[in-house]
Amino acid sequence: MDWTDSRYYRVATDGSFRLDRQDPSFNGELLDKGSAQVFLQQGVKHLQELQDVLYADGRHGLLVVFQATDAAGKDSTIKHVMSGVNPQGVEVTSFKHPSTKESRHHWLWRYGMRVPARGFIGIFNRSYYEEVLVVKVHDLVRYQNLPPNLVGKDFWERRYVDINAFERHLANNGIRVVKFFLNISKEEQRKRFLKRLNERSKNWKFSEADLGEREHWDNYQKAFELMLRKTATTAAPWYCVPMNSKWFGRLVVVKILIEELKAMKLAYPTLGTAQLAALEKGRHALEG
Amino acid sequence: MDWTDSRYYRVATDGSFRLDRQDPSFNGELLDKGSAQVFLQQGVKHLQELQDVLYADGRHGLLVVFQATDAAGKDSTIKHVMSGVNPQGVEVTSFKHPSTKESRHHWLWRYGMRVPARGFIGIFNRSYYEEVLVVKVHDLVRYQNLPPNLVGKDFWERRYVDINAFERHLANNGIRVVKFFLNISKEEQRKRFLKRLNERSKNWKFSEADLGEREHWDNYQKAFELMLRKTATTAAPWYCVPMNSKWFGRLVVVKILIEELKAMKLAYPTLGTAQLAALEKGRHALEG
Repeated sequence: MDWTDSRYYRVATDGSFRLDRQDPSFNGELLDKGSAQVFLQQGVKHLQELQDVLYADGRHGLLVVFQATDAAGKDSTIKHVMSGVNPQGVEVTSFKHPSTKESRHHWLWRYGMRVPARGFIGIFNRSYYEEVLVVKVHDLVRYQNLPPNLVGKDFWERRYVDINAFERHLANNGIRVVKFFLNISKEEQRKRFLKRLNERSKNWKFSEADLGEREHWDNYQKAFELMLRKTATTAAPWYCVPMNSKWFGRLVVVKILIEELKAMKLAYPTLGTAQLAALEKGRHALEG
Repeated sequence: MDWTDSRYYRVATDGSFRLDRQDPSFNGELLDKGSAQVFLQQGVKHLQELQDVLYADGRHGLLVVFQATDAAGKDSTIKHVMSGVNPQGVEVTSFKHPSTKESRHHWLWRYGMRVPARGFIGIFNRSYYEEVLVVKVHDLVRYQNLPPNLVGKDFWERRYVDINAFERHLANNGIRVVKFFLNISKEEQRKRFLKRLNERSKNWKFSEADLGEREHWDNYQKAFELMLRKTATTAAPWYCVPMNSKWFGRLVVVKILIEELKAMKLAYPTLGTAQLAALEKGRHALEG
């Protein structure tokens, strides 16, 4: 199996996806951390160049969604993969608890406002997918003040349908949505939590809530699986990234982003006759 | 004169600033482009580290404003100085022509919404200062639908006062505003426009409007000078950066940003007794 083949990580769109068949420890076998570092640097450089054409081309946008359990490496992946890319062309949004005002709106409202414009890359650190994850696991729907007749048997099914429709709408407008599920094992999470507790410069990040969430591990895995199965589409693919080796997972992410941007067939704009004439006129004025 | 002394670039707050006494070609004399490159890389790395503490500390924010004439290097400075910093902690906003909706609001409205939160760096590529620059040079006030009795003799004076008050308010809330005027000569602009016309991957950026603006060079210089004189304050300093050598100007910018962040005396949060107890409890649960 070739680790560079992105199809390996792409979630099937036929509803057959099984999370327990994924190996979060997969790391390409032949790779070591050192050579991964070199690949990553080359990848980030390539990404820089592609972002420049994306902006100049101005007809496509890229929305990158990260979802995962705590400590899977969302923040550090964004840091390592996107540092180096011109921040003028990238906007990262970390979604936290909604404000009172946001809660009164339909649930896609606050996410829709942060969708990247054409020419830009938008990164969602957590996203509207939380509406079928944390909201589902903790039954937060009861706080969403929905009309009771709309909270029925096919409630979650309709959320998946809404998400797919939203992403299709973006695709129809030149915004490609690429989604990463960062996959770690429960044991790996335990190790990372302990590490976080023991490092002085990191232990301020520790939150008792994280441990509380860990107790819902199995429910989250079920919710993740269903989400991946129901919302993996050709228009907006999910990639399930093995993340027990962070350095490997980052490499997979950068590889896929490059592939996705290349598939857009981006180009610097070419000038029409009128524009070329204006150019000549400008040159004349400046040289004269 | 030591090029590393940021006081050299800091605009006087006593109203004595003269733009024509600034040398846009100054480049530190002893420096060459190669060693500047090394300094820049070190600086960007240092900036990365400081951004990490800024976020963890969470009590300070940094708003960086870039103003300049066309082709002075706003975009490329942002690209070279800020690429490498975690984009999760940085938000760049390029302000263009206001929308119809934005035009109906008071002029600080759209800028206020993009001010960084504490823990973050916000970059303004052009800013509310355009309200005393392009708006002044082209007399755009007539399109702003202001009540006529408010457009009187002290109109511009009141705009400067409003800006200073706005920045003081931010300072009172932990947001430091640092402003860069990128200073190039008229001849340097001519060279850069010609270069832009001649490079295939760049000439799509060419706009006849740029040449039109160039005809207003003297009026802009006057507006820049007055802006710098009236809005350079201790709470929100202006730096006038010599930019005929782009590589040198970038170095000055990164140097000043590092100094400004260091002056905040940022620190990773230290844990209180209750938090340390929670930490112990967490460790016990994970190890048990």
